[in-house]
Amino acid sequence: MSIITLLTDYGTADSYVAEVKAVLLAAAPGVLLVDVTHEVPPGAVRAGQYLLARSWHRFPGGTVHLVVVDPGVGSERRALAAECDGHRFVAPDNGLLSVLPAGARFVALAVGPQVAATFHGRDVFAPAAARLATGWSLAALGPAVTDAYRSPLPTPSQQRGGVEGEVIYVDRFGNLITNIPGDLIPRRATVLAGTTDVGVLRRTFADVASGEPVAYVGSGGTVEIALRDGSAARGLGIGAGASVRAAAP
Amino acid sequence: MSIITLLTDYGTADSYVAEVKAVLLAAAPGVLLVDVTHEVPPGAVRAGQYLLARSWHRFPGGTVHLVVVDPGVGSERRALAAECDGHRFVAPDNGLLSVLPAGARFVALAVGPQVAATFHGRDVFAPAAARLATGWSLAALGPAVTDAYRSPLPTPSQQRGGVEGEVIYVDRFGNLITNIPGDLIPRRATVLAGTTDVGVLRRTFADVASGEPVAYVGSGGTVEIALRDGSAARGLGIGAGASVRAAAP
Amino acid sequence: MSIITLLTDYGTADSYVAEVKAVLLAAAPGVLLVDVTHEVPPGAVRAGQYLLARSWHRFPGGTVHLVVVDPGVGSERRALAAECDGHRFVAPDNGLLSVLPAGARFVALAVGPQVAATFHGRDVFAPAAARLATGWSLAALGPAVTDAYRSPLPTPSQQRGGVEGEVIYVDRFGNLITNIPGDLIPRRATVLAGTTDVGVLRRTFADVASGEPVAYVGSGGTVEIALRDGSAARGLGIGAGASVRAAAP
Repeated sequence: MSIITLLTDYGTADSYVAEVKAVLLAAAPGVLLVDVTHEVPPGAVRAGQYLLARSWHRFPGGTVHLVVVDPGVGSERRALAAECDGHRFVAPDNGLLSVLPAGARFVALAVGPQVAATFHGRDVFAPAAARLATGWSLAALGPAVTDAYRSPLPTPSQQRGGVEGEVIYVDRFGNLITNIPGDLIPRRATVLAGTTDVGVLRRTFADVASGEPVAYVGSGGTVEIALRDGSAARGLGIGAGASVRAAAP
Repeated sequence: MSIITLLTDYGTADSYVAEVKAVLLAAAPGVLLVDVTHEVPPGAVRAGQYLLARSWHRFPGGTVHLVVVDPGVGSERRALAAECDGHRFVAPDNGLLSVLPAGARFVALAVGPQVAATFHGRDVFAPAAARLATGWSLAALGPAVTDAYRSPLPTPSQQRGGVEGEVIYVDRFGNLITNIPGDLIPRRATVLAGTTDVGVLRRTFADVASGEPVAYVGSGGTVEIALRDGSAARGLGIGAGASVRAAAP
Repeated sequence: MSIITLLTDYGTADSYVAEVKAVLLAAAPGVLLVDVTHEVPPGAVRAGQYLLARSWHRFPGGTVHLVVVDPGVGSERRALAAECDGHRFVAPDNGLLSVLPAGARFVALAVGPQVAATFHGRDVFAPAAARLATGWSLAALGPAVTDAYRSPLPTPSQQRGGVEGEVIYVDRFGNLITNIPGDLIPRRATVLAGTTDVGVLRRTFADVASGEPVAYVGSGGTVEIALRDGSAARGLGIGAGASVRAAAP
């Protein structure tokens, strides 16, 4: 049974997600649908990128990922399908798919005249995802695209004795997730989040007292800052874009 | 594999939806469950009607729709099952099913003594939905009902040179969705939402500058008013029930 | 097809739930995943216990329940699997599984060195749940545990002429759910919630006028206090832990 994952900013209060699923189930009966999330803040392509980057490769090969955070829906921006490492993707050409590794191949989807100009998720991306899930090749969906819009996630900079990066995502617990890979941090380095000294890297929040800030290498492989039993975003008063530095002692 | 959709005001923070699903899966093994939404505001039959009207017909024929927004649960109101265009429905008799087209047939479900008076979704509607999904006929579920409670969505009125309707739903983006079908709008008509002149109909929000209001025919087929990259409900200060007019120039 | 239910405090805005599901689907292809909820307040073991206690036994025998509310993740607390009445469970050893009936058997799961110290849901509990769903015995998962941490839900005390309990959960409607079984209430007893006299037990909220408080035996079998067409938690100004008494007239 093929899997299609859904990652959107549609929310779950309206019928939008269900309309997409109805199209998928009608065109690809028996497909297995898995929600990644529908709570990407409206139009927040950056957050969509981060969540896609974390999750897609954990699904079995052959999975199709429908990714729609699309503030430019109905404009001239292209609609894409892509293939990479045995996974397939459909998404608007607004940078969402910049998180795929080099070697990803892209095609442009046709946008027919019957399509609702404000709901390509249902009328363009869902039919394309269903085709991929039922055996169509990427090439059969449209002409190749070699200049997909690129908007990569920011990367940290290595400096003498340390590394400087930033918060790229804040999760529901208020944990501050950075773009600094754990293995770039020098031994015994001290982590500075905004203006707060968070101390040396720990293993997990349980390694500090309740209410204390703590830095550790998170489950996505990069440094995170948490507040034990609380929200680091609130407690430290910083969010996405805030500077984070790790410097050797 | 049969599909059962779920549309309720139960929220997703409690175990209510899972208890309904447990009953469905125990009584109809192998059924495919699809959430439409569980975030209808508590008791908001109007919103439930709108979401049902938009979504049910997009699912494959044979789908069973469990629709429970039920402020009168446990009172004398009847419990219904219905059939229409090859789809089946279970819902309280409070107007939710008024959005089905003429020709829908209804029966009354028995409410046994073991039933929790506050949770007919689990104890009355889920067992009935499972029966429909496993091959029971509508008639086998109870006696025919010919006077189901009707509470249709408001309809727009056509006037010389224009049409007057209202906002019937506000979605998660703050888009104001009206009951005015796009094809009723005169050519080059100007749209007035509350007291705000929104200008002529466009194709999509990307047709105006960021922060500007815009009217277009939405993905449900009726006129919508949005604020590009924002919330029209907040920006224009209006919501469900607000008057919307479209008048020829 | 095996069923795995998921009950966590991960929220649905991030990719955490999807990462868990990806592991489950990769290791147990064809398994059916059912969300109980992911909106347990962060770290709220009590709420997790209540929701687990209400829901697990309604699923078909053979179901595996993944239950992760885990403020001590990465600390020395053990990771458990359990079996009870033909159902299986995986959860941290922090009291969540105290709601299982006597006779439940427990084993300790190994926590390998590759495991993310902050995401045992994905790296410890999901692989174990997938094994249980694909036929592994409980004993094959680890050594028996006979001293699982116990933290039972509070129980009401019977007194001459009445019973005293407390609010143990507040649901999305603002209904106050107590730990007082309906059959402990004396006939014609008056219910006092905090300092508010709620009157005698009714069948359902529809038995009082709009805006009035009402006590009834809820769908979980215990006394609940609601405010018709409103939130009792807000209207009465009380929440979890508040005292509730029922005394004969």
